[in-house]
Amino acid sequence: MPPPRITKPIYFGPFLVTPQVFHSTPHTFALVNLKPILPGHVLISPHRRVPRLRDLTPTEISDLFLTVQRVSRMIERVFNATALNIAIQDGADAGQSVPHLHAHVIPRREGDLEGGGDAVYDLIEGEEGDVGAHLEERERERGGEQRDGGVNGRRRGRFPAVDADEARKPRSEEEMRKEAEWFAEEMEEVV
Amino acid sequence: MPPPRITKPIYFGPFLVTPQVFHSTPHTFALVNLKPILPGHVLISPHRRVPRLRDLTPTEISDLFLTVQRVSRMIERVFNATALNIAIQDGADAGQSVPHLHAHVIPRREGDLEGGGDAVYDLIEGEEGDVGAHLEERERERGGEQRDGGVNGRRRGRFPAVDADEARKPRSEEEMRKEAEWFAEEMEEVV
Repeated sequence: MPPPRITKPIYFGPFLVTPQVFHSTPHTFALVNLKPILPGHVLISPHRRVPRLRDLTPTEISDLFLTVQRVSRMIERVFNATALNIAIQDGADAGQSVPHLHAHVIPRREGDLEGGGDAVYDLIEGEEGDVGAHLEERERERGGEQRDGGVNGRRRGRFPAVDADEARKPRSEEEMRKEAEWFAEEMEEVV
Repeated sequence: MPPPRITKPIYFGPFLVTPQVFHSTPHTFALVNLKPILPGHVLISPHRRVPRLRDLTPTEISDLFLTVQRVSRMIERVFNATALNIAIQDGADAGQSVPHLHAHVIPRREGDLEGGGDAVYDLIEGEEGDVGAHLEERERERGGEQRDGGVNGRRRGRFPAVDADEARKPRSEEEMRKEAEWFAEEMEEVV
């Protein structure tokens, strides 16, 4: 059974990300990542484009984190994970690069990042830079016609990214769309 | 006006932490840290001692994150912060050291961790180790009489702590109790 189609345009900050979205509720959406830190690294945001957790209503808070829980269950199962990192950079000085509140969910397994001394959170910091910078780059390539204005160019509180991060390549639209379709189907299985 | 007294014993994993608790709701409590990464670093947990986000009911999820939001507002105001890091290590393989779900809330300001190249999340990883190890040490000093059994000794997914972390000293019970009383009063001001 194909998952329900996302029909309305969905924006992550100023960026149109509809093809990356695999789940949507009345107040929340979940999207696959341009440059995942680990396979299954996704982002979960409120539809209302506000930068801070404090900006959310109680209804939005509940819906956001119930969605984090449901998406986490799917991601953990699909990626045979045993744990998850869940992180919010709530404001520019905490490393947020796109001024639209988002929770990172990253599936983890024993030893998955060992060997290089990498820290998943260093990677988040690097990825955060990439989230903004690479979405910006994509917009420029598109000529900006899909952009919805108002990006916050500030980039503060960023920590050095490790080499592994610099080596990650942004994924194609087609690859992300396929992953989003796969995850949308898998969400049907979540109790 | 003094804040309402916490009268019932509150456990964080196997550890009795009542004097560290500054806020309690029907399903959630907030406690000050033995070794804060930055001033104002606090933890927020469900009363029910479950290890994973997936273990929470919808009511508990909503209460937990509404409490994260309310505590965050207080911490940001009291510490003149401009942002917050909010992080959950959801399971041992994500770096969780005490098998009782907890969200870290850490107030941030521009440049607060610059100069040493430190990453707040490296510090969380170090702190996580400390959360378990130092609470264990405190229990041993007490002769274990306040311990409630069942600690999970596993320590996986830990990343190297930076030197700054190793240099942090655990705080005294009296210092934590005073901070908890202060924060409890400040919580009264939160809208």
